[in-house]
Amino acid sequence: MSAGEFDVEKHFDLLQTMFASAVAAADPMKRVPAFLPEGSQRQLTVVGAGKASARMAKAVETAWQGPLTGLVVTRYGHAEECRHIEIVEAAHPVPDKAGFEATRRILQIVTDLGPDDHCLALISGGGSALLTAPVPGVSFAEKCAVNEALLASGASIGEMNCVRKHLSCIKGGRLSACAAPAAVTSLLISDVPGDDPAVIASGPTVVDSTTLAEARDILERYKIAVPVSVRRVLRDNVHETPKPGDRRLASGVTHIIAAPQQSLEAAASEARAKGVTPLILGDSLEGEAREMGQVMAGIARQVRRHGQPVSTPCVLISGGETTVTVRGDGRSGRNGEFLLALVHALDGAEGIYAIAADTDGIDGMSDAAGAMAGPDSLRRAEARGLSALNYLERNDAHSFFAALNDQVITGPTLTNVNDFRAVLII
Amino acid sequence: MSAGEFDVEKHFDLLQTMFASAVAAADPMKRVPAFLPEGSQRQLTVVGAGKASARMAKAVETAWQGPLTGLVVTRYGHAEECRHIEIVEAAHPVPDKAGFEATRRILQIVTDLGPDDHCLALISGGGSALLTAPVPGVSFAEKCAVNEALLASGASIGEMNCVRKHLSCIKGGRLSACAAPAAVTSLLISDVPGDDPAVIASGPTVVDSTTLAEARDILERYKIAVPVSVRRVLRDNVHETPKPGDRRLASGVTHIIAAPQQSLEAAASEARAKGVTPLILGDSLEGEAREMGQVMAGIARQVRRHGQPVSTPCVLISGGETTVTVRGDGRSGRNGEFLLALVHALDGAEGIYAIAADTDGIDGMSDAAGAMAGPDSLRRAEARGLSALNYLERNDAHSFFAALNDQVITGPTLTNVNDFRAVLII
Repeated sequence: MSAGEFDVEKHFDLLQTMFASAVAAADPMKRVPAFLPEGSQRQLTVVGAGKASARMAKAVETAWQGPLTGLVVTRYGHAEECRHIEIVEAAHPVPDKAGFEATRRILQIVTDLGPDDHCLALISGGGSALLTAPVPGVSFAEKCAVNEALLASGASIGEMNCVRKHLSCIKGGRLSACAAPAAVTSLLISDVPGDDPAVIASGPTVVDSTTLAEARDILERYKIAVPVSVRRVLRDNVHETPKPGDRRLASGVTHIIAAPQQSLEAAASEARAKGVTPLILGDSLEGEAREMGQVMAGIARQVRRHGQPVSTPCVLISGGETTVTVRGDGRSGRNGEFLLALVHALDGAEGIYAIAADTDGIDGMSDAAGAMAGPDSLRRAEARGLSALNYLERNDAHSFFAALNDQVITGPTLTNVNDFRAVLII
Repeated sequence: MSAGEFDVEKHFDLLQTMFASAVAAADPMKRVPAFLPEGSQRQLTVVGAGKASARMAKAVETAWQGPLTGLVVTRYGHAEECRHIEIVEAAHPVPDKAGFEATRRILQIVTDLGPDDHCLALISGGGSALLTAPVPGVSFAEKCAVNEALLASGASIGEMNCVRKHLSCIKGGRLSACAAPAAVTSLLISDVPGDDPAVIASGPTVVDSTTLAEARDILERYKIAVPVSVRRVLRDNVHETPKPGDRRLASGVTHIIAAPQQSLEAAASEARAKGVTPLILGDSLEGEAREMGQVMAGIARQVRRHGQPVSTPCVLISGGETTVTVRGDGRSGRNGEFLLALVHALDGAEGIYAIAADTDGIDGMSDAAGAMAGPDSLRRAEARGLSALNYLERNDAHSFFAALNDQVITGPTLTNVNDFRAVLII
């Protein structure tokens, strides 16, 4: 191994260690126990949904001494073996019948609870697609159609969720309303900007500040064509979501047990321990992945040329979810696309290394969590006849980094605090 | 005036002062004198091109004691009154006949110089479009056609300039070759990433590292259809640009007298003097303007929520040129589009103020240098019935900020160190 290769290994090692500590900081096995309700001999009824929720259930089974029952729905491939809490797998991001059926059973379980029961809700990112229960009068197919129309409309995620919550029997605090008179403790793992509990998995246990009137306005404003059944449900004012002080709501507490910022801080500590100055730019940066790659490349160049915003060695850390506007036929996840754009913009610049990976272990539709890159990535790609620009144009970062053997492969990590990006400048 | 309005005034004042000092730091009147050749009684022949070049000529006339002659071409509206050096105005960014004719005369002037003459070249951004002299055998119209095909091809700016230099009688060091055996002193104002003298205005006085063979490859790679005359000129190896050590080149020195980084540092000093921590993120950040707006909004939010990457009060400063992909029918310059996207993404967040403006005084096709925004921009817009998203979708930031009376209007500043962006977080 040459000295140069040794450096690459060392820098890739640091980046991988940082990513691993970001994931570990959000591991349900570590985070759940401290937030469980008091009286660990009591019976708990556990429900939940999200990519981390099976592992949250396992953490409960490990830490709780009293009887446990319940059902949790997670994404295919994200189950953990549990003894008392049933784990169901279903489709994400596009809902399927398995999620529909699991949601029906969860609602049945909490509806049957009495005033002396205690419900523990385990909610994490991905839960919104896994929990699907259209209000009476709207079919599963009709709700899916509305979802597709919303996605194509240009409405913001907040606006889409307003409509979705008002067409759901479980979102926007309705799960909690069904659980009353039982008490509800909600443990949340955040993958959203601002860590708003009402936004994580569309807030099944959290009061909703949006209204039916707003949902109607949004359909109007974006000229979204919806089935007559949907229009009727939104028009009748009987389907309003629970509001603060609503008597229908169960009493309870909500804890955010893990969030992107904690994971970025954990990664920053790893860097600091190695003598590298960490600079956290944001826990919820958003924007088109390839454009963010170009901006981040510009900041990295400034570090090299002018020692600004900090001097080397340093690492620019960020979280949050970018967007990929698909133009080509490739398989870019958000993180791969970001990293490939960064590589292209840096054009082999010396001393700059980067990792971009999804903390849930699955970057988009690929089987990798993400990838790493260094100053020689372009040269090695060219030696294999690969053009970074060409792969970028076809949205095929996945194949690009697979060919270089630079993917980060973890399998599902069973947690989810969104994306992790780190640009190391030596 | 209420306390809130007073704060807005105060913050807008700081941002405007920062922008003004960024422009002042690149003012030719201040920068030129220190870089003039020795022997201030001698005769100088002055030629030049760019948005700053008329004011550079005026600075020479003010500081130089010996006889002066020559011709400088600048953009329409960017002239300064000079007594000895002729100032010609021409079109930018699309060349016109006035630029074509001025370039012919500049080449004639330098070709006539002898071994005892000294040529002073005043080069700044915009000079590439103002200097247009197709190689023999290619007409002005044919060169314009190639330019359009290049712009539509997806080729990078570096690749486009490689082709342009090989079809020009003045770019890529050829002006300097024509001036030999006279000595040439070049004063450059940089508006390009990395401040590469060969890139500023396509380097009329700087040796070219690109080759005819590369120019042919680029046309091939991007399948750019060009006139037969162009293909013939590029095929014959007689039109190679001057390379390092080329005997055709005039002896001379090149000084970069102003660059984006210096201007950002000047703005940073203004902030520091007011007790606001400046953080320079990059002197050449690139990417789609609206996406950079979203990324910068994310960093500003991180400052407010977590005191990272620095604590308040601070200001995020950056330079460099963003891109606007025009989708609508409006008049967004790069800076307006960036700022409007920032405003939309911040959604009225407290304590965040911003300015984005072109140091040349003209943002895109508008008559403003740029604009400013604060936490109440969205509310004031809504009160006037203006939707930020709607104006953003139509690329019409110009009208948006004009309606709010928040434009920064300077007229041509007669310098050009590219864009200036500052996001102040209180």
